[in-house]
Amino acid sequence: MTDAPLFHPLDPAYAQRIQESFERQGLMRHLGARLADVQPGITEIRAKRRDELTQQHGYFHAGVSAALADSACGYAAYTLMPADASVLTVEYKINLLAPANGEELIARARVIRSGRTLKVCLADVLTRSGGSEVLCATMLATVMCLPNRSDRPG
Amino acid sequence: MTDAPLFHPLDPAYAQRIQESFERQGLMRHLGARLADVQPGITEIRAKRRDELTQQHGYFHAGVSAALADSACGYAAYTLMPADASVLTVEYKINLLAPANGEELIARARVIRSGRTLKVCLADVLTRSGGSEVLCATMLATVMCLPNRSDRPG
Amino acid sequence: MTDAPLFHPLDPAYAQRIQESFERQGLMRHLGARLADVQPGITEIRAKRRDELTQQHGYFHAGVSAALADSACGYAAYTLMPADASVLTVEYKINLLAPANGEELIARARVIRSGRTLKVCLADVLTRSGGSEVLCATMLATVMCLPNRSDRPG
Amino acid sequence: MTDAPLFHPLDPAYAQRIQESFERQGLMRHLGARLADVQPGITEIRAKRRDELTQQHGYFHAGVSAALADSACGYAAYTLMPADASVLTVEYKINLLAPANGEELIARARVIRSGRTLKVCLADVLTRSGGSEVLCATMLATVMCLPNRSDRPG
Repeated sequence: MTDAPLFHPLDPAYAQRIQESFERQGLMRHLGARLADVQPGITEIRAKRRDELTQQHGYFHAGVSAALADSACGYAAYTLMPADASVLTVEYKINLLAPANGEELIARARVIRSGRTLKVCLADVLTRSGGSEVLCATMLATVMCLPNRSDRPG
Repeated sequence: MTDAPLFHPLDPAYAQRIQESFERQGLMRHLGARLADVQPGITEIRAKRRDELTQQHGYFHAGVSAALADSACGYAAYTLMPADASVLTVEYKINLLAPANGEELIARARVIRSGRTLKVCLADVLTRSGGSEVLCATMLATVMCLPNRSDRPG
Repeated sequence: MTDAPLFHPLDPAYAQRIQESFERQGLMRHLGARLADVQPGITEIRAKRRDELTQQHGYFHAGVSAALADSACGYAAYTLMPADASVLTVEYKINLLAPANGEELIARARVIRSGRTLKVCLADVLTRSGGSEVLCATMLATVMCLPNRSDRPG
Repeated sequence: MTDAPLFHPLDPAYAQRIQESFERQGLMRHLGARLADVQPGITEIRAKRRDELTQQHGYFHAGVSAALADSACGYAAYTLMPADASVLTVEYKINLLAPANGEELIARARVIRSGRTLKVCLADVLTRSGGSEVLCATMLATVMCLPNRSDRPG
């Protein structure tokens, strides 16, 4: 509703940092998801339809919509964190608005409030069939910045 | 907090109906999840730790916690629906309380309010390491009953 | 994020129906709230700052933000319901983004998904000081249509 | 579901600190609410039925349920914070389970996870009629500790 705020990342190398973190997420690889866009306060994650991602009616499982939107929110927030910080999803709510029936699932997230410790994000999840997109879920998430705690393992 | 209500299923064959629906969920199979318990208004779903289920620090990805808890809530509600109804998660909120670090992830759901159209469920997600369990997430979900719409395809 | 859908109300007298329902809400009167705008799928509710509406630091209490946004979501959904239906908030989530410090509190709601039984709404809550507005909360709500159940008492 | 953890307050004078903070909330006074119980990680807030607290059908307005539960969660978390900290509700979700029809509204909150910065709370809201109570809402809330920032004005 409100216009998206303009954000200035603290870490100029945020895009590479997030791409590397994304690639360490075994689940994103397991779901066939890819990070399609990263900008200050904004990300997009996509996954193509496969039988492995379905619920009992053959649509994308809500768990896939949520996982993509959760990661999209986390990384949208992470674009605005210092290079030596780690990111943690505190909580989210998701409303499933329509059956996720399509060729590709797209989660688009943006930061709507960027506090030092907590960042609040909105994400829309859409299904794409050919050239048309349909909104199938929306998420409101709270993401935490853990300073001085690298995202990279040991 | 409040005691769990006692529920009487409308469909005596609810357990088999839910097992079959669970097995049609490609995502649950892809995550290696199994339906460990089904009772009126109650379910438990479990998944063993695998690298395919991790986030960037090697713990279970929140997306797995959410997918298991979401399915557990949906099926807990589904135990109380008529045989010819279909089940739909309307929305949920999840709080991630602790890193999901353990050998197995366990989602336990129960119905706290069973209306004819809408059922409200709570789920706890725990990690098990050896014989001890730690609470790592909690979910509050709204699940809808779609009457006269079979869960089975075609 | 997504553009607001265009809605066509089922009841041409929706605005009057909602104004009358609003006036029956003792709490809205007790909070000094007024219905400032009603359009198909959209409402705005406002309340002026008074000591009776504050939390311990003298700002608007989050309970006021939530009550205004909840009513705004309910009535935004209600604009799209039949004349003989009743409206019920099923659940909502609110994120409190900034201290609600200002002369007036404004809740703006809109329907983002209008199903027959359930409607999903977003609301922003802003504080106004002089001519400038600051976003202080955002809500995602699920609202239910109860058909053939008049909103009017007895 | 899980047993409530046992908490040890950092500030032995927590009960008095919370009573004083509660009394500075203009809204709680305006709603006729009183703090009925305070223990480590637990609070109870009550309000008697008055026309000023109703929605259009004469029941307690969901805004009252939410305001009481929100304050109950905030103060349950605040019992576990240092004496010189301030408390802030980050976000909550509430499910409205049944019409809030009764003589008194009771919100009971407890902390389910007590991190240093964030505390997660559950609250049940019940209506009392004579000696019997009915669950009418449940809340899941995230509360933040702001260290070195007194709750008292100026």
